[in-house]
Amino acid sequence: MTAGTSAIGRRAGQATTAGRLAAQLGLPLVGADVPLSRVAPLHTADAESLSFLADRRYRSRLQETKAGAVILRQADAGAAPGTVLIADNPELAFARAAALLHPHPRPAPGIHPTAVVDATAVVDPTASIGPFSVLEAGVTVAAGVDIGPHCSIGAGSCIGADTRLVAHVVVCAAATIGARVLLHPGAVIGREGFGFARDGERWVRIPQVGGVRLGDDVEIGANTAVDRGAIEDTVIAAGVKIDNLVQIGHNVAIGENTAMAACSGISGSTRIGARCTVAGAVGMAGHLEIADDVHFTGMAMVTRSQSEPGVYSSGIPAMPNAEWRRTIGRLRRLESLERRVRRLEEVLAPRTEGATEPSPD
Amino acid sequence: MTAGTSAIGRRAGQATTAGRLAAQLGLPLVGADVPLSRVAPLHTADAESLSFLADRRYRSRLQETKAGAVILRQADAGAAPGTVLIADNPELAFARAAALLHPHPRPAPGIHPTAVVDATAVVDPTASIGPFSVLEAGVTVAAGVDIGPHCSIGAGSCIGADTRLVAHVVVCAAATIGARVLLHPGAVIGREGFGFARDGERWVRIPQVGGVRLGDDVEIGANTAVDRGAIEDTVIAAGVKIDNLVQIGHNVAIGENTAMAACSGISGSTRIGARCTVAGAVGMAGHLEIADDVHFTGMAMVTRSQSEPGVYSSGIPAMPNAEWRRTIGRLRRLESLERRVRRLEEVLAPRTEGATEPSPD
Amino acid sequence: MTAGTSAIGRRAGQATTAGRLAAQLGLPLVGADVPLSRVAPLHTADAESLSFLADRRYRSRLQETKAGAVILRQADAGAAPGTVLIADNPELAFARAAALLHPHPRPAPGIHPTAVVDATAVVDPTASIGPFSVLEAGVTVAAGVDIGPHCSIGAGSCIGADTRLVAHVVVCAAATIGARVLLHPGAVIGREGFGFARDGERWVRIPQVGGVRLGDDVEIGANTAVDRGAIEDTVIAAGVKIDNLVQIGHNVAIGENTAMAACSGISGSTRIGARCTVAGAVGMAGHLEIADDVHFTGMAMVTRSQSEPGVYSSGIPAMPNAEWRRTIGRLRRLESLERRVRRLEEVLAPRTEGATEPSPD
Repeated sequence: MTAGTSAIGRRAGQATTAGRLAAQLGLPLVGADVPLSRVAPLHTADAESLSFLADRRYRSRLQETKAGAVILRQADAGAAPGTVLIADNPELAFARAAALLHPHPRPAPGIHPTAVVDATAVVDPTASIGPFSVLEAGVTVAAGVDIGPHCSIGAGSCIGADTRLVAHVVVCAAATIGARVLLHPGAVIGREGFGFARDGERWVRIPQVGGVRLGDDVEIGANTAVDRGAIEDTVIAAGVKIDNLVQIGHNVAIGENTAMAACSGISGSTRIGARCTVAGAVGMAGHLEIADDVHFTGMAMVTRSQSEPGVYSSGIPAMPNAEWRRTIGRLRRLESLERRVRRLEEVLAPRTEGATEPSPD
Repeated sequence: MTAGTSAIGRRAGQATTAGRLAAQLGLPLVGADVPLSRVAPLHTADAESLSFLADRRYRSRLQETKAGAVILRQADAGAAPGTVLIADNPELAFARAAALLHPHPRPAPGIHPTAVVDATAVVDPTASIGPFSVLEAGVTVAAGVDIGPHCSIGAGSCIGADTRLVAHVVVCAAATIGARVLLHPGAVIGREGFGFARDGERWVRIPQVGGVRLGDDVEIGANTAVDRGAIEDTVIAAGVKIDNLVQIGHNVAIGENTAMAACSGISGSTRIGARCTVAGAVGMAGHLEIADDVHFTGMAMVTRSQSEPGVYSSGIPAMPNAEWRRTIGRLRRLESLERRVRRLEEVLAPRTEGATEPSPD
Repeated sequence: MTAGTSAIGRRAGQATTAGRLAAQLGLPLVGADVPLSRVAPLHTADAESLSFLADRRYRSRLQETKAGAVILRQADAGAAPGTVLIADNPELAFARAAALLHPHPRPAPGIHPTAVVDATAVVDPTASIGPFSVLEAGVTVAAGVDIGPHCSIGAGSCIGADTRLVAHVVVCAAATIGARVLLHPGAVIGREGFGFARDGERWVRIPQVGGVRLGDDVEIGANTAVDRGAIEDTVIAAGVKIDNLVQIGHNVAIGENTAMAACSGISGSTRIGARCTVAGAVGMAGHLEIADDVHFTGMAMVTRSQSEPGVYSSGIPAMPNAEWRRTIGRLRRLESLERRVRRLEEVLAPRTEGATEPSPD
C-alpha cells in the first residue's frame, strides 16, 4: 500500500450512464440514456451531471437545469425537460446513485510498513492498515476494514467488518466496534470517563473499567469523544449517527438510528431512546431517561427525563442587543410585575367578584 | 517496549482477597475472607466481585446482591448478608480498591524505536515513550512518565514524574506539566491563543509568548485545548480536573481542585478560584474573577465576576416545543404587558391609594 | 531536519534595540536607544522589555513601569518617563514588534526521513515536512510551507505558500488551502459532513463530494472541524480567524476577515458575511444568511437570518441558583399573569375607557 491509496481519498466521479444507474437502483428511466460522470445541484449541473429534486418548492429549477438526468418523484416528472429517474424517495435514490458515481476509493489490502502491529493482533488479509497506525495486543480487525493513517487501537479491541477509521482515530482498550462503522478524524472512543470520589478537597479518580460498544452502521464525527463505562459499558446502538465535537459521557446508552448533531454533550448514565434526533449544541444532564422518538431542537437544555415522544425546545433566539438588554431587564422585573398585578387584584377584588359573577369562568 | 504494552491498556482484574484489600486500605473487614478479582455494581456483581454502597437510597440492593464483598458505611453494615469492608467514605474507598483490583498496566520503561527524540531531550530511564512520539529539543521527562503513541512534546517542555499522556496528545513549546498529571487523547496544551490586533479590516496575530503550567494531579480531557498565555502564563493549579472538549483561553487561571465538566469554554484572562465546580457546557466571558467555592450548573452563561461562594445558574430547561413557542411569544409581549399593568395602575391610582391606605404595605 | 527544529517551537526573545525596532516599524522614537530582548506587560516589564499602552485607562501604569521602552499614542507620550515609540494603533505596532522580538523559529527546509510522501506529491524545496507526516497522491506544497509532526494531507490537496500546519492536523482530500494560513493542532479540514437520506428508520449517508477552500491568511483553531461541501464547496474567505473547538458544517460560507471565538457551531449551508464577529459558544441553525458586519455576543442562539449589520444577543446571564429557580417559575407563570391582566382590563374596561378618554394615548 502506498500513501496515495490510503483512507483519505477524493471522490472523483466515475463514468456511467443514466440507464445503467437506473438498472442498478431499480428505478424507472424516462428519456434518453445519457452518459453521467458526477453529481451536481440543479442550478450548476452540466450535461454529464446527475441531479435530484426532493423538495417540490424548487420545481421551477427543472426548467433551467442543464443536468443530464434528474431523480424525482413521478408527480414531478412532467416538469423536467430531459431524462429522469423516478423514485418515491428521490433523496435516498440520489444518495445511492452518488455512492455509485463517486465510489470511495478502497485502499489496497495490507499493513503499511510503518504501522506497528502487535504480534498477537489478528488482522484479516483483506483489511488495510495505514501509515503509522498502532494496533496493540489482542486487537482483531475483520474483513474489509480500512484503518487510515495515525490511528491507535487499544489492547483487546475488535473492529467489525468493512468499518473505516478515516485517520487520527483513537480507540482505547477493550472497545467493540461493529460492522460498517465510520469513525472520523480525531474521534476518541473509550477514554476513561470523568468519575471521581472526593477525598476532602481533593478528587480521586475512580478507575473506569467498563467498555464501550458501537453497533453496526454507527458513525462518530470528527473530534467527538465517547467515554468508556465506569463499571458497565457505554453503548451506542446500531445505526446511530453522531456529528463532530460531541461528548458522550460514561455509561450513556443511545438507541438505534438516533442522530445527534455537532457540539452536543450527553452527561454520564443518560439513556436516549431509538429514532431520536438531537440538534446541534444540545446539553443533557446525567442519569436521564429519554424515550424513543424524542426530538430536541438546537441548543436545548435538557434537565429532565422525557417519557413522551415529541419535539422539545429551549433557549431564546438571538435578537438585536438593545432589545435583548431590555428583555433581560423585564425578566428581572417579573417579580415586581407579579406583585403589582396582585396588588391590582386586591384593590379590585370586591368589584372583580361582582363583575365576574355572571360569567361561569 | 512493544505496542502491546503501551499506554492504552485494558484494565483487567487482578486476583486478590477481601482481607488483603482491607489491609491495604486500612479498612475493618467483617465476614469471610473471600477471593476477589473485579469490581461490579451491586445488581450485576458475582461472587468474585467487589461492590460498594454509598447512597443509602439503594440499601435494599444489599439483600439481592451476589457480590463477594461490599464496601459500605458502618451504619449500613447490618443490612449486608455477606462480607463487608467498613469505610467512612465508601466511594473513596471503592476508588482506591478499584485501582488495586484493576491496576493500569504500566508499560515497560524505554523509548520505542519509532519515537523521534531530539538529542538534547532528557528522558528518565524509568519513563516510557510510545511509538511515533516526538520529543523536541530540550524536553525533560521525569521518572515514571508514560507517554503513549503519537504524542508531540514541544521544545523546552518539562513533564513531571509519573505523568501519563495517554495517546495523541500535543504539548506545545515551553509547557510545564506537573507530577501525576493525566492528559487524555487529543488534548492540546499550549496552543498559541486567539489574540489579534486590528489593522483596518484585517486581523494581525499578536505573538503569544507566554507559557502554560499544569500543577500536580491535574487532568485534562480528550480533545480539550488549553492555550498558552499571551505574555504571561496560563495556569492550571494542582488537583484541577477538566473533562473532554473544554476550551481554556489564554491567561486563564484556575485554582486548586476545581473541576470542570465537558463542553465548557473559558474565555481569556478569566480567573477561577479553588474548589469550584463547573458543570457541562458552561460558557464564561473573559477577564472575570470567580471566587473560591463557586459552582455553576450546566449551560450557565457567565457574564459577570462572582465574588461570593454559592451556586449560580442560567438557562431555560427544555419543554415541549409548542409550549416553548408560546413562552418565547410571552417574553416578546412582556413589554406590552408591563405597559398594560402601568395603565391599569394609572386608572386605579386614586382608588388604589385609598384602598391601600389602611394596610401598612 | 531534526525534531528540535520542527514546527512547535518556543518563541524565545531575540536581542535588538528600541531604535532598530522603531526603524523597522517606521515609528518615531522618543528617548534613549535602549537594548530590548522580550515583550512584557507594563507591570512586570524589566529594562530589556518592550511594553505597550493601548487602553488609556491604564495610563497611570506608565509611572511605575520598569519597561525599557513603551509603544503608545502621541497623546500619552508625556506620561511615560522613559523611551517611547509613537504609534496611532499601539496594539498593532506591538503585535508587529513582538513578531520581530520573538520570531517563530522556521524549521530547516526538507522532508523528515520518517514522513511518508507519495511519489506524485510535489513539495517545494523550501518547505519543511515534519516527522510522521503523510502526504497522499497529488498533494502540492508551496514554498515556505511548514508542516509539523503527525499531519495527514489527503489526495489532491494544495497547500499555499508560507502556510503552517502546527502538528496533528488532518486535511482530507481535495482541500485548497491558501497562503499564510495557520492550522492549529487537531484541526480537521474537509471531513465528509453530516448528510443523510432517510430509508425508513435508517439513515443512509449521502456521499459528500464537495471540497473545502480556505483563503489566504485564514486561521483555524485547535480541534476545530471544517467539513467539506456536500456537492459544492465549503468556503472560508481570506483573513477569517476561527478559534478552538468550532464546528463549521458542510457548505458554510464565511466572508473575509470574520472572526469566530471558541466552541461555536455553524450548521450546514449557512452563509456569514464579511467583518462579522462571533463570540464564544454561539450556535447557528442551517441555511441562514448573515449580512456583513453582524456581531453575535457569547452563547447567542441564532435561528434566523440577519440582513442588518449590528449586535445580536441572546441568553440569560447566570444568577444565584435560588433566584434562577424563581425566575424560571415566573416564566412558567407568565401565561396566567397575562390572563390575570386581561381579566383586570375587562373588569376595568368601562371605566378605563372613560378614564383614558381625555388622554390621546
